[in-house]
Amino acid sequence: MSYGHIFSFLKDSNIDVWDRYVGHQFVQRLGDGKLPRNKFINYLKQDYIFLIHFSRAWGLAVAKTEYLDEMKFCADTISALINTEMNLHIEICAQENITREELSCTRENLANMAYTRYVLEKGLSGDFLDLIVSLAPCIFGYGEIGARLSSGTFHKNYEPWIGTYGGKDYQATCQDVGRILDTAFERRVGHPTDPAPRWDQLKSNFRVATELEIGFWDSNC
Amino acid sequence: MSYGHIFSFLKDSNIDVWDRYVGHQFVQRLGDGKLPRNKFINYLKQDYIFLIHFSRAWGLAVAKTEYLDEMKFCADTISALINTEMNLHIEICAQENITREELSCTRENLANMAYTRYVLEKGLSGDFLDLIVSLAPCIFGYGEIGARLSSGTFHKNYEPWIGTYGGKDYQATCQDVGRILDTAFERRVGHPTDPAPRWDQLKSNFRVATELEIGFWDSNC
Amino acid sequence: MSYGHIFSFLKDSNIDVWDRYVGHQFVQRLGDGKLPRNKFINYLKQDYIFLIHFSRAWGLAVAKTEYLDEMKFCADTISALINTEMNLHIEICAQENITREELSCTRENLANMAYTRYVLEKGLSGDFLDLIVSLAPCIFGYGEIGARLSSGTFHKNYEPWIGTYGGKDYQATCQDVGRILDTAFERRVGHPTDPAPRWDQLKSNFRVATELEIGFWDSNC
Amino acid sequence: MSYGHIFSFLKDSNIDVWDRYVGHQFVQRLGDGKLPRNKFINYLKQDYIFLIHFSRAWGLAVAKTEYLDEMKFCADTISALINTEMNLHIEICAQENITREELSCTRENLANMAYTRYVLEKGLSGDFLDLIVSLAPCIFGYGEIGARLSSGTFHKNYEPWIGTYGGKDYQATCQDVGRILDTAFERRVGHPTDPAPRWDQLKSNFRVATELEIGFWDSNC
Repeated sequence: MSYGHIFSFLKDSNIDVWDRYVGHQFVQRLGDGKLPRNKFINYLKQDYIFLIHFSRAWGLAVAKTEYLDEMKFCADTISALINTEMNLHIEICAQENITREELSCTRENLANMAYTRYVLEKGLSGDFLDLIVSLAPCIFGYGEIGARLSSGTFHKNYEPWIGTYGGKDYQATCQDVGRILDTAFERRVGHPTDPAPRWDQLKSNFRVATELEIGFWDSNC
Repeated sequence: MSYGHIFSFLKDSNIDVWDRYVGHQFVQRLGDGKLPRNKFINYLKQDYIFLIHFSRAWGLAVAKTEYLDEMKFCADTISALINTEMNLHIEICAQENITREELSCTRENLANMAYTRYVLEKGLSGDFLDLIVSLAPCIFGYGEIGARLSSGTFHKNYEPWIGTYGGKDYQATCQDVGRILDTAFERRVGHPTDPAPRWDQLKSNFRVATELEIGFWDSNC
Repeated sequence: MSYGHIFSFLKDSNIDVWDRYVGHQFVQRLGDGKLPRNKFINYLKQDYIFLIHFSRAWGLAVAKTEYLDEMKFCADTISALINTEMNLHIEICAQENITREELSCTRENLANMAYTRYVLEKGLSGDFLDLIVSLAPCIFGYGEIGARLSSGTFHKNYEPWIGTYGGKDYQATCQDVGRILDTAFERRVGHPTDPAPRWDQLKSNFRVATELEIGFWDSNC
Repeated sequence: MSYGHIFSFLKDSNIDVWDRYVGHQFVQRLGDGKLPRNKFINYLKQDYIFLIHFSRAWGLAVAKTEYLDEMKFCADTISALINTEMNLHIEICAQENITREELSCTRENLANMAYTRYVLEKGLSGDFLDLIVSLAPCIFGYGEIGARLSSGTFHKNYEPWIGTYGGKDYQATCQDVGRILDTAFERRVGHPTDPAPRWDQLKSNFRVATELEIGFWDSNC
């Protein structure tokens, strides 16, 4: 399970918050099945709203690059998010008698809002790389969580969720995003070992986004 | 051939420049086949660069809305532009021994730059509707031109181009964009006959974008 | 104390959250002097970071208009925020032996981040009016709080703060912003009584921003 | 006359277009007084519109940084542009019986539009440094032109213009912008001699902006 060089650097230099994020109590309870169903549903509803703004951020990424491969990848990601991932939420919620309308009317919580707006704002103030780095903890964190939970023994309660993020498709997406991140870095900063004051800014950006992910788990516990 | 209410209003109130755009000498020569091949190729090369920035503008549109139907439509449009329309340019140019690399290195002319940057900037300063209105002359103009040329007798020289824009698929796209525009207006301004100072701004925005399309034809003549 | 028509409309239609914001426990304790000093200092430190992003939002407002009077007003506001209001924070903190460096290194809390990024993001997705409406609860709320506290009997502990926001200068600023908001609405939407679907969006935007202000008080209690 | 390290690098690597810009026929005729008055007035009218969008770009720069010194400098620049430089245009035009209203209604030409929208769009897609680099040719080019013309013998026809840009105040502004650019580079890229793929992008950005300045002179000849 390797999602590229730049992610490794960013993660290693923020390993304290990263571990708190991917090893969060919410995640453990997903794995051992002890997360109350209503907490899971509330999380899914918040995550549905999250995905709307997350998709918007990938749209902004299209606007922020002139490299065709980056544009293409980001456009495909929006489609995957809207047509696949959001539908997954709609389906699971439908099984709980939550309609799509109800889902759309979810009242966004503070932690949710803070994270997505932070990301979108990075897309306003920074360049393509700044935006992708702020999106990274979400993509790769779910990848690591899914891979770890699905490789061990896990309770069947949240099997579909674990199966999705631990599955081949999502893991392939993570590796694609890893490549896009590596290329974006190479094009805009250079070799990972070059001296670059931007490293500090990117690490700090990644750290804040990771903390906001922790805040998102906290808000759903 | 109807592309919706709002487009009709915008076009009718700018009919002088609209007619100069869709009836431009460049268009006539496409129809009667008298456009020199090298002019056509130069136009295609400029248009290739145009489509990169045009796709970016649709990406920005995704970022500027929270309506899922609008997001979805804009995301699909980016994919269509990158995967279909730009490939058409790549193929036609390949027949003329112009490689994809050569195509990518086209030096963007002033008229081209003015138009795409105007659109992207509207997306920065205005809202979703302002952005879509600035994109409208391109979409609908090519639709009208394609429909008119393909419904008459036209020279076979530029048959593939005429066939593309006069064809079912592109005409369906125009009608979809027409619906998106009508809905976007309804959601953000109201009924087309309501008093609204924004009408003046939208008409002026549409006018400038249409003039920039004329500038683009001029630069390719 | 009147800050214009549009603010009145927005406030009246969100009076439930508005009252919770301007009548918040934090505000009461500022007035009766029972707010612990360390809470006040923590608030000032958060507010210092808030003002950086708030100033950035006014910068974005300059970029989002082509009306010279609006540009001028927003540019003057940035200067006032940076040169006057932020200096006030620096001075009060200096009296508590908090250096400017320490102030700059304040760790932004979640509520703080959520509010400023929400505002900046409205500036990305919406137009000038959407941005100003999201800024309004901060400007006018402090105006109302300052005016009310300073017109009654209040404890001397937080006299400088109360004096600033209840004072002539800040009250004049509120009236100026009120005029800018009225004009921005008139130019972009029309008469306040016209039918306009945007009213719902603007009210909802104002409501969310007001709730984020409550969140900010909560986080400092 | 030195405007900092980064400007020197950018200029030297684009010296061919730079020389065509600062040595343009329009500039020569300003110096020898042979520029027809009506051409000068047309230029001033276009430049008035230019300054509106140029000021907006500095507003965007405020939104794109979190460094207080950069924010302050950009905010002061907007004020100087609106309150000083635009007033200069208003005054000179008033002497020619052109009212402020007439000035505001100037029909923006294509070259003008291409340049300002290019700059604003760089502010959307890139970071603070990308935006400042795209603004640089305007600031420093006028500085070099003013310094050169005013240090030689020049015809009195355009003395106020030459005196403004060759004068102490404007030259000091250029040195301030030079320092801001050097610092912005140091903070975001590193030492000018470090390996950095961004150099190519920044040079190309500077080159395009310089060519757009040439286009602006061309359009006013």
